Amino acid sequence: MTNRTLDQLLSTLADPTRRAIIERLVEGPAPVKELAAPHDMALPSFLQHIEVLESRHLIRTRKIGRQRMCMLEPLALLPLEGWLDRQRRMWERQLGQLAAGMETGSRIETRRL
Amino acid sequence: MTNRTLDQLLSTLADPTRRAIIERLVEGPAPVKELAAPHDMALPSFLQHIEVLESRHLIRTRKIGRQRMCMLEPLALLPLEGWLDRQRRMWERQLGQLAAGMETGSRIETRRL
Repeated sequence: MTNRTLDQLLSTLADPTRRAIIERLVEGPAPVKELAAPHDMALPSFLQHIEVLESRHLIRTRKIGRQRMCMLEPLALLPLEGWLDRQRRMWERQLGQLAAGMETGSRIETRRL
Repeated sequence: MTNRTLDQLLSTLADPTRRAIIERLVEGPAPVKELAAPHDMALPSFLQHIEVLESRHLIRTRKIGRQRMCMLEPLALLPLEGWLDRQRRMWERQLGQLAAGMETGSRIETRRL
């Protein structure tokens, strides 16, 4: 995973309309019309969000009859989950070392008393 | 957590320099000078990234003598971890239901044969 992938993924998700689309699609595929309904937005503007999500491989779309169906590409979120996991692991290791250091310090302190 | 919190958090993290600062600070506090060293960037531009991170509560800074020390605020990443966890749980539940549906379907199919 490149830095650019994460840049694009994070900036794509930084938009509340696009996150709302993801939040709906984790429950299963849906047609564009249904996805657009809760948003107070002209359809062309909404379609731009769909295009951004598709171009960045967060969703797939497929024309079925007159409807455009949208489906989640859940693996697309993995680079972000991986990045967050790494930060958490490093941070917890750091806390563990601090705690161990404080324990050693307090043992030394106790011996001195 | 508001939508605005997540918008800001995601757009803050969408910058590779700001992520690199976080990646360094999960290993422990560091002075601005050390954080800036790996980046080919004028100090005022780098300081703007520090200010963005501080204003959005991802880091704290503290002047110690002539140095400005930076520390991570690891709880600031929690809203994003929470959002991702919710999407993953919903998606896995959806997959579970699909799998259960396919199993039922295949049992019916088997009975028919």
